[in-house]
Amino acid sequence: MNIALDMMGGDYAPVEAIKGLKLFLSENDDNQVHLTLIGDENKLSPLFDEYQVNSENITVVHAAEVIGMHEHPTKALKEKQQSSISIGFHLLATGKTDAFISAGNTGAMMVGSLYSIKAITGVARPAIGAYIPGDNGQTSLLVDVGLNADCKPENLSQFALLGSLFSKYILNYEKPRVALINVGEEEGKGNILCQAAYPLMKENKQINFVGNIEGRDLLMNKAEVYVCDGYTGNVLLKFAESIYDIVQKRKIEDEYFNRFNFEIYGGVPVLGVNKPVIIGHGISTSGAFNNMILMAKKMIEQDFIEKIKSNFV
Amino acid sequence: MNIALDMMGGDYAPVEAIKGLKLFLSENDDNQVHLTLIGDENKLSPLFDEYQVNSENITVVHAAEVIGMHEHPTKALKEKQQSSISIGFHLLATGKTDAFISAGNTGAMMVGSLYSIKAITGVARPAIGAYIPGDNGQTSLLVDVGLNADCKPENLSQFALLGSLFSKYILNYEKPRVALINVGEEEGKGNILCQAAYPLMKENKQINFVGNIEGRDLLMNKAEVYVCDGYTGNVLLKFAESIYDIVQKRKIEDEYFNRFNFEIYGGVPVLGVNKPVIIGHGISTSGAFNNMILMAKKMIEQDFIEKIKSNFV
Repeated sequence: MNIALDMMGGDYAPVEAIKGLKLFLSENDDNQVHLTLIGDENKLSPLFDEYQVNSENITVVHAAEVIGMHEHPTKALKEKQQSSISIGFHLLATGKTDAFISAGNTGAMMVGSLYSIKAITGVARPAIGAYIPGDNGQTSLLVDVGLNADCKPENLSQFALLGSLFSKYILNYEKPRVALINVGEEEGKGNILCQAAYPLMKENKQINFVGNIEGRDLLMNKAEVYVCDGYTGNVLLKFAESIYDIVQKRKIEDEYFNRFNFEIYGGVPVLGVNKPVIIGHGISTSGAFNNMILMAKKMIEQDFIEKIKSNFV
Repeated sequence: MNIALDMMGGDYAPVEAIKGLKLFLSENDDNQVHLTLIGDENKLSPLFDEYQVNSENITVVHAAEVIGMHEHPTKALKEKQQSSISIGFHLLATGKTDAFISAGNTGAMMVGSLYSIKAITGVARPAIGAYIPGDNGQTSLLVDVGLNADCKPENLSQFALLGSLFSKYILNYEKPRVALINVGEEEGKGNILCQAAYPLMKENKQINFVGNIEGRDLLMNKAEVYVCDGYTGNVLLKFAESIYDIVQKRKIEDEYFNRFNFEIYGGVPVLGVNKPVIIGHGISTSGAFNNMILMAKKMIEQDFIEKIKSNFV
């Protein structure tokens, strides 16, 4: 398998990308994974020497440009065809690589996923899943956290299935429970979207729907997949991230709150597009890069995209 | 002034209500406040003796019934006319009391506020404000946290004004900053609701609008008033409450996270109705009841309802 890694993406690129790569190579010497490293060769070469990265399982593809973290996604992808993200999607779309990982401009990664890799037939709206640390140690998935600010009820029901498949094949939950995030537990509660999504999810035989949960239940292991629109999911996820920032600032050492360090999970998957795409956090360090490569590897090993396709025929 | 207190509302009623009342009376012996205590006389009398509550500033109004915490709000209000909540709203609507406080059935308190006390002329949709502890020590307000699961852009702009007035006159922020909760900072970001609400809030001369904030900014003192639809606000508030539960469970002692104990603020105000109504948390203990009485007192002293009326002509 051939996994492409954007070496120029993220606040600490390319150094942390290289350190993450080194970490992966040191732990995975089975020749199963070939890595295509996309970035500025002039910057990367001396760092490969400095960090003693030397493997026959890596290939460097030169990218003359970089899309900045705050550039307008669509505009940047159009104008910077030689950027690491543009090249990454080109390689993926043309089948030269099997997965693409970047901790760069999130918007550009989303736009590239939708317009270059495209949605799987039958998936109306791809979505992004993020990890939610349950207080019993489990890791749940929150879908969507940003691709779809406005959703239709059918979208939420599809997010439920996409999240369930990821939870099952990548996070190893045999029969993941799916819950709808709402303002009360009873059916009929909530905004118009939730009121309409509930019966669709209840009737959806492809998922294990357990009903509504409230904001207070999100960390309480009530389900393995939590579903909401991308506006709400994004606000919730970023709020949770800020809790970790505060915990750190206040020097609170706690095993559970350490799991609010979303970096430990690597990156978040784009669910419902035709190839594995993983978006890293801007502040990704070596461990996050290593974990993203491992996740891409698992998505390929599990033939995850085919699993989605066969569930959306 | 005459403040009515539902003695039967909340998980620890009536004992905690009585202890809160005693606390208030011990600290406020200026005869400014007369308290109308609504509840089952047979249950209250022995407790007044036991806790040595004895003041000429209290009157007990007998209520033969109680609306349970999980009863259907509209149905319960209709069928239990002799419940403490029904009587409380009746006394308030007929001008016999000046404010009403209850830690009982939240839904019944909302329905009662809307249908018995009614919206102030010009306020399309009343809302509930909740407290958000900023990490610099300030207390911001989040509006709406549950009265309006679906909102129109105009509603959000009105929530901004209602929240600003509460922040100014009750929380003492001279010129409260108002921010819209969104998925990005730039104008034009977000779901259809936020995209449409932003220009309305920007043009609203009655508020000090500072633009969008993201979920990660909510605890970072970016504004004194945060505005969103009631679905999102409710999910966020309950998520924040669960953080406090976990902090307690994990025995983390931290001054900042202690402020996630929403009980210390007393209850949340219903904003935009014709009389002061304060809804307490189901788990309210004596301190919360005391704080709710103090807040009602301040709302009356500040002539808060008139302040709203004069801003909505």
